[in-house]
Amino acid sequence: MMQGAQFLGFGRSGQSNVTFPSINPRTNQPTGFTFYKATESECRCAVELAKSAFEDMWHISDRQRAAFLRAVAAELEACADALMQAIMAETALPPFRIMSERMRTQFQLTSFADLLEKGGWQEERTDAAQPQRQPVPKPALYKRLVPIGPVLVFGAANFPLAYSVAGVDSAAAWAAGCPVIVKAHPAHPRTSELTAEAIVKAAKDTQMPEGIFSMLFDNGFGTARCLVQHPYIKAGGFTGSLAGGMALYRLAQERADPIPFFAEMSSLNPVLLLPEALQNRGEAIAVQLTQSITNNMGQFCTKPGLLLMPECEAAQNFLHHLSQGIAQTAAETMLNEGIATNYNHRRMRAMEQAGVEILAVSDRKAHMEDQNIGIPTLLKISGKQFLDNPIFADEIFGPCSIAVVCKNESEMWQCLSHPEGQLTCSIFGEEQELAARHNRLFAMTEKAGRLIFNGVPMGVEVSAAMQHGGPFPATTDVRFGSVGTDAMRRFLRPIAFQNCPEALLPRRDKGRIEHEKKSAFK
Amino acid sequence: MMQGAQFLGFGRSGQSNVTFPSINPRTNQPTGFTFYKATESECRCAVELAKSAFEDMWHISDRQRAAFLRAVAAELEACADALMQAIMAETALPPFRIMSERMRTQFQLTSFADLLEKGGWQEERTDAAQPQRQPVPKPALYKRLVPIGPVLVFGAANFPLAYSVAGVDSAAAWAAGCPVIVKAHPAHPRTSELTAEAIVKAAKDTQMPEGIFSMLFDNGFGTARCLVQHPYIKAGGFTGSLAGGMALYRLAQERADPIPFFAEMSSLNPVLLLPEALQNRGEAIAVQLTQSITNNMGQFCTKPGLLLMPECEAAQNFLHHLSQGIAQTAAETMLNEGIATNYNHRRMRAMEQAGVEILAVSDRKAHMEDQNIGIPTLLKISGKQFLDNPIFADEIFGPCSIAVVCKNESEMWQCLSHPEGQLTCSIFGEEQELAARHNRLFAMTEKAGRLIFNGVPMGVEVSAAMQHGGPFPATTDVRFGSVGTDAMRRFLRPIAFQNCPEALLPRRDKGRIEHEKKSAFK
Repeated sequence: MMQGAQFLGFGRSGQSNVTFPSINPRTNQPTGFTFYKATESECRCAVELAKSAFEDMWHISDRQRAAFLRAVAAELEACADALMQAIMAETALPPFRIMSERMRTQFQLTSFADLLEKGGWQEERTDAAQPQRQPVPKPALYKRLVPIGPVLVFGAANFPLAYSVAGVDSAAAWAAGCPVIVKAHPAHPRTSELTAEAIVKAAKDTQMPEGIFSMLFDNGFGTARCLVQHPYIKAGGFTGSLAGGMALYRLAQERADPIPFFAEMSSLNPVLLLPEALQNRGEAIAVQLTQSITNNMGQFCTKPGLLLMPECEAAQNFLHHLSQGIAQTAAETMLNEGIATNYNHRRMRAMEQAGVEILAVSDRKAHMEDQNIGIPTLLKISGKQFLDNPIFADEIFGPCSIAVVCKNESEMWQCLSHPEGQLTCSIFGEEQELAARHNRLFAMTEKAGRLIFNGVPMGVEVSAAMQHGGPFPATTDVRFGSVGTDAMRRFLRPIAFQNCPEALLPRRDKGRIEHEKKSAFK
Repeated sequence: MMQGAQFLGFGRSGQSNVTFPSINPRTNQPTGFTFYKATESECRCAVELAKSAFEDMWHISDRQRAAFLRAVAAELEACADALMQAIMAETALPPFRIMSERMRTQFQLTSFADLLEKGGWQEERTDAAQPQRQPVPKPALYKRLVPIGPVLVFGAANFPLAYSVAGVDSAAAWAAGCPVIVKAHPAHPRTSELTAEAIVKAAKDTQMPEGIFSMLFDNGFGTARCLVQHPYIKAGGFTGSLAGGMALYRLAQERADPIPFFAEMSSLNPVLLLPEALQNRGEAIAVQLTQSITNNMGQFCTKPGLLLMPECEAAQNFLHHLSQGIAQTAAETMLNEGIATNYNHRRMRAMEQAGVEILAVSDRKAHMEDQNIGIPTLLKISGKQFLDNPIFADEIFGPCSIAVVCKNESEMWQCLSHPEGQLTCSIFGEEQELAARHNRLFAMTEKAGRLIFNGVPMGVEVSAAMQHGGPFPATTDVRFGSVGTDAMRRFLRPIAFQNCPEALLPRRDKGRIEHEKKSAFK
């Protein structure tokens, strides 16, 4: 009955008389599901539920939260077929990718559950009292991380599961002990609804407080504005475009009390290609890069959008193979109409710049009748053109990459230092080539959050040793990342307890006994 | 010859023809030292030196940086007498406080040196490669923290050493591997100059790159604006007023690339007083609080400015003793004319509000001829007045506190939740009183970064288990603190190396051998 309504805690609400449909990007036709735009009063209700749940969560143990995270993962698995159908209809992503992404999403949830059960995330520090110290007694100190408060999460268009309703931002916030309010991405509302149903079932089954999760639908900006600026919201997470991320970030900074707002936004992911590697294995590298540029129509924040190489015969040969690969990749439907329009606009704009050589444009269309097609494209410019024209440093989100053939290696390094911050920077080189460029490592670290040696940036490993983040505009805060369990840090804050009676200290499951032994607290 | 000139790396520069004098706040007369206002070109020069030094510092080991930090501490000790003289003249602080603060500053520097020698601050995480994994091989990952880039530090008026030129912000940034540019506080320029000379000597003696430190003088806002918005500056640290901190924070957010700007600004430091504790030891608590409110004329971010208690006979008795203590404390010169003016304005404004009862105003002046006097003051209002009038929630920086006598304990807790974020929240209560209020701990944690049980907030222990920070407006980022070695985190960022040849990884002194054993890297 309440299909399409907001999720306010464990209930549903459809106050508005304004709705919007779920759309199939292959056809631009409705998928058959309609959604209510959230009203301001529904937004306020979600935030009030979250505030109330935040206090309740203070009394919930790590093990209980871990059980909830595992239950969400299990519920996603249980509705895998329905999710598959919804995602295919709403995003045009292929089945293998959807299955992999669901498994990744479950893995993310259970990774946080593992960490909660293992302990250590609190980063406890204790310092014993010295009552006799001169000139003043030393107090007993105990410091640990605690949750920051209700967290606002924006679903991402390009990861309908892994960076959306039950994605890494939500999982990290729940693991930290924060209630989550999700603003569902309007391009996959039915997928979001199915995920939300799974979360609500998991939350009820594991006795979580009701406001641990709410979700609001909106295809405009009103809900985002209302939520970002609500005083009860204490942090935000976003993955998407630079324009969208910065609009939200600015709203967060305009608050009377600015809050941390972590947006992951835009990256060219430069790939550096050294001559000997191109000479020895240019064709193999071309195969890897073809796949990395065009996989799922290049709709990844880590798509390599800039290939930097010094002018040489091996480079020409490499570009020949890469051009063949790109030209032969079928053009397919992109995630949604907005992304396809944007891609085509940015791609055309780059192609029209003076001096651009069009190396490859795919002429194969996977399905003749499909809408919102993204055409795999490879462009070539000189180092000088790249340095002179800032348009080439704008991200083109989709299956397009720009090869920058530099007059020499020195110009190549100059080109690397030219654009702003990146998520990744890759380098292909033979062992001795890399060793000889040891002093260039600094320039690469200044530019990106992850350096990849002889590999492509795509395929972000979910691991505590992964960093997915980078200097602005890759993200709004270079000190944090959004992949792996360290993503939790964004939603935690330290607090010190001075001379606190043991009975009053916040509940810690793991390490409690050990702590009690060591502790100097009365 | 160059007395009063900017410190640009190891050199001095006095380009401007505009100068300002160092002033003695006791007399409002010049101390005899004059300082050049930094020019824009001097600011740019400092930033360019820092950028160049940042790359050099990449090749400097932890042990070398530790040696530099120890050398700075030793140089401060070596010029202790000159510093004492300068600080007494420029701030009117008493000798014992100055000596303690110098020792604390040295301790901070050597604490970071200890940490660098011990290792672990990099938070290394490794994940071994699994080349055979299906469907895709798993790469080798190594993540660690690296320095964020050149850091801008603003000297604080109330800590001429511990939060100024060689204070905790500078020490934390150097420990992280960041060059530091200090904007000297115009209220103690001679003190800053002596400290800077000590730093330059230490940097030269330990072979640090020249741009590791620069310092600029200005009694206006131009230098701050130029530095905060310079693209080479990657983070900032400030301790001071809400107005000053927010002006700088907003400048940092207005940049094309917003940077983390950590400002520690304003706090009422509420103290909760429970009836039995007041009954059993009200007089002793009054003695502690008198000292905490008036020590060094209450010019601490942790001065208790708000005393919350339920109406009872014990509270009346406690306030009687506290009033006596405050009235008998001598009125002395404050740090500078601006702080004294501001204190008197805010104190008068609070006193003039309807219904305020003036419990104590000191009538003793330490030295009859002294200027810029701060008069110790205790005011009393009801819980309702506090809740109704937002003026009482504004910090009064100086020796004034407001006792809020609530009609009952429930109103007391309501008053606690009323003002914004705080650095600290203290509670005095007997063991069973505290235990019975276990469920109030959450409300205290929501409000502050440090909870103190049966103690006053003053006397911030320098320890890894200390948290000095709190929700806005106590600071601009609740996720970080500015006391203890964790203060380094503000100036570090994570970076992941994927399949990186061992020879190229950044230098790590400690744990390197252990890491090599475990590592999966070729």
